Amino acid sequence: VTIADVREGALGVALKRCGGRARTVKADLSNPVTIEGLSRDADVVVGALSSRLGRMALGAVAASGTPYCDISFMPEDALDDDAMVKARGGLAVVDMGVAPGMSNLLAGVIAEELSPCEMLEIYVGGLPMERRWPWSYKAGFSPADVIEEYTRPARLVEHGRIVVRPALSEPELMDFAGVGTLEAFNTDGLRSLAYTLKVPFMKEKTLRYPGHIELMRVLREMGLFSKEPVEVQGRSVVPLEVTSALLFPKWTYEPGERDLTVMRVSGTGMKDGVRTRVTWDVLDHLDQATGFTSMARTTAFPATSVARMLLDGTISGSGVIVPEMLAGRQDVLARLLRELSQRGIEYRRAQERVGSA
Amino acid sequence: VTIADVREGALGVALKRCGGRARTVKADLSNPVTIEGLSRDADVVVGALSSRLGRMALGAVAASGTPYCDISFMPEDALDDDAMVKARGGLAVVDMGVAPGMSNLLAGVIAEELSPCEMLEIYVGGLPMERRWPWSYKAGFSPADVIEEYTRPARLVEHGRIVVRPALSEPELMDFAGVGTLEAFNTDGLRSLAYTLKVPFMKEKTLRYPGHIELMRVLREMGLFSKEPVEVQGRSVVPLEVTSALLFPKWTYEPGERDLTVMRVSGTGMKDGVRTRVTWDVLDHLDQATGFTSMARTTAFPATSVARMLLDGTISGSGVIVPEMLAGRQDVLARLLRELSQRGIEYRRAQERVGSA
Repeated sequence: VTIADVREGALGVALKRCGGRARTVKADLSNPVTIEGLSRDADVVVGALSSRLGRMALGAVAASGTPYCDISFMPEDALDDDAMVKARGGLAVVDMGVAPGMSNLLAGVIAEELSPCEMLEIYVGGLPMERRWPWSYKAGFSPADVIEEYTRPARLVEHGRIVVRPALSEPELMDFAGVGTLEAFNTDGLRSLAYTLKVPFMKEKTLRYPGHIELMRVLREMGLFSKEPVEVQGRSVVPLEVTSALLFPKWTYEPGERDLTVMRVSGTGMKDGVRTRVTWDVLDHLDQATGFTSMARTTAFPATSVARMLLDGTISGSGVIVPEMLAGRQDVLARLLRELSQRGIEYRRAQERVGSA
Repeated sequence: VTIADVREGALGVALKRCGGRARTVKADLSNPVTIEGLSRDADVVVGALSSRLGRMALGAVAASGTPYCDISFMPEDALDDDAMVKARGGLAVVDMGVAPGMSNLLAGVIAEELSPCEMLEIYVGGLPMERRWPWSYKAGFSPADVIEEYTRPARLVEHGRIVVRPALSEPELMDFAGVGTLEAFNTDGLRSLAYTLKVPFMKEKTLRYPGHIELMRVLREMGLFSKEPVEVQGRSVVPLEVTSALLFPKWTYEPGERDLTVMRVSGTGMKDGVRTRVTWDVLDHLDQATGFTSMARTTAFPATSVARMLLDGTISGSGVIVPEMLAGRQDVLARLLRELSQRGIEYRRAQERVGSA
């Protein structure tokens, strides 16, 4: 295993975590030539770059011809690059983390199972186990991307059409076993699902402890999420940058601080002539033995599992694959769930009748 | 009547409000020579300058020998200047608004009436009549002074000694007839009362609609009230200045927007051998006929009433007088209450037994 990163400190941490069983390369991965060169020597590539580098990396790895599994959460639609990746002889499974990732795959599985599938809902959140006043929140990934969830309008599907709702809209309280009551709000997380699945009602909502959303709405109303400069004592200041400088240190996990990841993917539709709800639930916590946060575990392990399947040819072909495109592959689903279970991440399926008999 | 101000716009508004029955003078009142000159020509002077000019103005008016009534809310202790004012042959009633002002006078009246007076409490707030999400608040005076109330530790008196509590501390819900439930928090408003009255328990608390205090605590915890610069994108920014730039426009009353002022001054102690609570309450609203806000009415009218008493010699002598020093003057109290009542501001007294018989 070769680990490449531009930050020496990050390489040191990674090497220590895997007990020295890897080679590290200090490399500037904002350069596609560097990525292509490193990829050419590899049997399979796993990408975990920041989102703004995602699309560039996809093209660079494709050019090397090496299979690729990516969790970069690129803002662009990766399926738009399918022809480019195919033309370069590449094969890439993208968005292969927890959400997007397992959320897509399980949504696809439910959509296959129900006929027709009438509605799909994804609820997902990464949270600290201990909630502390006032935020009851810490950021398991880039806090800037968290704020983005609080400002970007959310696209959902209603009556088969994409509709847009404001960020932080339609908060609802929901109970999750092992966690308690959480509050869900609309986020722009359907991504490829909005196009690949023909389900008339689909939405993704993000989960927080109750109260957090209201505070974020207040900060937004105050103008603290604005990217428009304001004049402060004769100087131009971007409020969001001040907010980031003040909030991000408070939203950073302490070393060893326990986090949790909770996700529910739920669909309703007809199964054997009966209106049925199928639900997949997962709840994971920081692994105190390895120090891996739950956010790292739930995001990385699906990607490494799929990387192994790319390596041994279980997943083959060319072009760009989003996870829901693997929903018909029961062998892929079974192996993913088994390998996640071996690492203590248990996805549980439930099924119930809904509505009138 | 001569009205002096450095802002021509303010002079125009004032002249219009009094139907042209005044002379206006554009003058820089940060210059004590200017104040002394203008004062020398007057029979009595009413001061309503910003707090940082208060002490300078006190000395300047005193030097002119003209009696002075002031509502500038200076940060310094005006009684420290008693000898200076006396030496210049001046007479000044300071802090003669609503709180400080009527609050001091009524606290003094209660302290005289009860023997001993065991406890004094002042609750006061200026609020918009309509509460709007999220702040449920607008600032009837300088918003910077409002933020100061949310950051400056509060001095109160317990067991006869001054103790200090954090800003925004000890929130409590209280009902006020005609307003509803409000939330009170400690503020540093006892001022001269902490020294002039020998009452073992005294406190002042400021009133807001429920919820506002919690939001202010959150903003404070986030660092938004801090005067310490933080680094933002390589530049030094003072968070409080950003907060002020964002919040103050939202906290500004619209023209004609209705405000209210609510105050309760309450004391307990022995009266004719019975433990008794004496309470003075006032509730005032914007005057739609004149457009005067309640904050302007309740603050200015006590000052103009006292100015008339300085003019006709009802209040005489020399040196600095704080309102509670007039508590023994039943004629002054009666005239103040009568003149306020003539302007629609009704202070109501109530008395009840407290504790076991």
